[in-house]
Amino acid sequence: MSYAMQLLDSYPRTFSLDASLLASTIDALNDCAQACTADADDDLSEQDVAEMVKCIRLCLDCADICTTTAAVTSRRTDYDADVTRPLLDACIAACKSCAAECDLHAMMHAHCGVCTEACRRCQRACQDLLATIA
Amino acid sequence: MSYAMQLLDSYPRTFSLDASLLASTIDALNDCAQACTADADDDLSEQDVAEMVKCIRLCLDCADICTTTAAVTSRRTDYDADVTRPLLDACIAACKSCAAECDLHAMMHAHCGVCTEACRRCQRACQDLLATIA
Amino acid sequence: MSYAMQLLDSYPRTFSLDASLLASTIDALNDCAQACTADADDDLSEQDVAEMVKCIRLCLDCADICTTTAAVTSRRTDYDADVTRPLLDACIAACKSCAAECDLHAMMHAHCGVCTEACRRCQRACQDLLATIA
Amino acid sequence: MSYAMQLLDSYPRTFSLDASLLASTIDALNDCAQACTADADDDLSEQDVAEMVKCIRLCLDCADICTTTAAVTSRRTDYDADVTRPLLDACIAACKSCAAECDLHAMMHAHCGVCTEACRRCQRACQDLLATIA
Repeated sequence: MSYAMQLLDSYPRTFSLDASLLASTIDALNDCAQACTADADDDLSEQDVAEMVKCIRLCLDCADICTTTAAVTSRRTDYDADVTRPLLDACIAACKSCAAECDLHAMMHAHCGVCTEACRRCQRACQDLLATIA
Repeated sequence: MSYAMQLLDSYPRTFSLDASLLASTIDALNDCAQACTADADDDLSEQDVAEMVKCIRLCLDCADICTTTAAVTSRRTDYDADVTRPLLDACIAACKSCAAECDLHAMMHAHCGVCTEACRRCQRACQDLLATIA
Repeated sequence: MSYAMQLLDSYPRTFSLDASLLASTIDALNDCAQACTADADDDLSEQDVAEMVKCIRLCLDCADICTTTAAVTSRRTDYDADVTRPLLDACIAACKSCAAECDLHAMMHAHCGVCTEACRRCQRACQDLLATIA
Repeated sequence: MSYAMQLLDSYPRTFSLDASLLASTIDALNDCAQACTADADDDLSEQDVAEMVKCIRLCLDCADICTTTAAVTSRRTDYDADVTRPLLDACIAACKSCAAECDLHAMMHAHCGVCTEACRRCQRACQDLLATIA
């Protein structure tokens, strides 16, 4: 059981969202942030770094947005749907843009393939969570 | 001239946004992140901390979202409006929720008054920037 | 295999550290950041929140420091031991302080027990990594 | 008066550090984080991006470490010198490495000159603050 799930399990109040859906989304967000941070660095080490500039930029954005979305969705106390909804929209957009660019490089660079997968999994998780709070 | 403005001035490519509007938005985002981080801590030190829980939570969210929005809007290379737009929406929502809650405590706690002002200034700046990229 | 490990596996250059030790440290850092962010929020929801103020503060610090340490240690390109070493020192100190405080509340609050464990695991991982780069 | 100073001024408890030294350090940290985030992006847009890889990497590290150090030093409640001291050490090291690398490119790229200055100012501020808490 992930720490996200363990901590939701021991949350002292009740909350309206499905705990296991929320925990798997938080895990996907943290995984995606890690994949994007590492992929941006892998790109920097490639000989064709000039071709990887857009990929680096989108990975940096996606890492920042996923980290923030993981923190905000982890907070259950006085939860504010008006903030969570557009933040999930932003995260879905960041994952989508990042996956599309990474996928272009996945044949050449295996790390971009891994990052594509992490972004797509995170995008789906955020969409599933968003569907339950709309 | 702020560092945000100096760095936009020396950006090697051209970009479509108004540089001084963008720089003042980035400055307002960084200021708001700082105000929210410090206000959450000030709240933790108040004797009526139990009354300040919602304020702390919203300040933590707003700080995280403003920090990320400052980083994403600072990046000009291969700029992606599809990510920036919903992120500004999320930031506007976070500033609005945080200001509304902080304002309730501003009479009792001067630090909440300062944070209200920082959030409102940041909200307006993000709205102005968003209006130019819609 | 975690994303941290997959991305280290596909890193295009060579690097001097043991990849599996590094990957498990990065995983422990991300897990600890998540546990601390969620524990701070769990604390905010407790009826005895006034007793939990120190715990909240140390969890916020530990989350921030672990997130940053995960990002910095994930970057292999032009690695700088002079930065990594004191940062690991800071992270070890943050995990130690946070675990010590959380442990005081673990009998009353199960979430503080989970966070204690995450901090101790992260502290050990950082110490093991630091031992190989001293 | 910066938001950092205004919020320290309205902090509800007493604290041992000099408020104006602390506020100017927090301001220098936030300025340096902004300069490094923007400089990394400016570097990505340069035609000689392959020569800028080390600079980008160190700017990303320095931005992350400065942002975290600003947040941790902004928290006054149950302040922990054992965490703050090594974190300031790490921040001083990051600023020093980043300034040294940026300075090599300052003749070619004006943005690297701006970032060098922000890093050096931040390094001095952190050293001055550290001297008062040793």
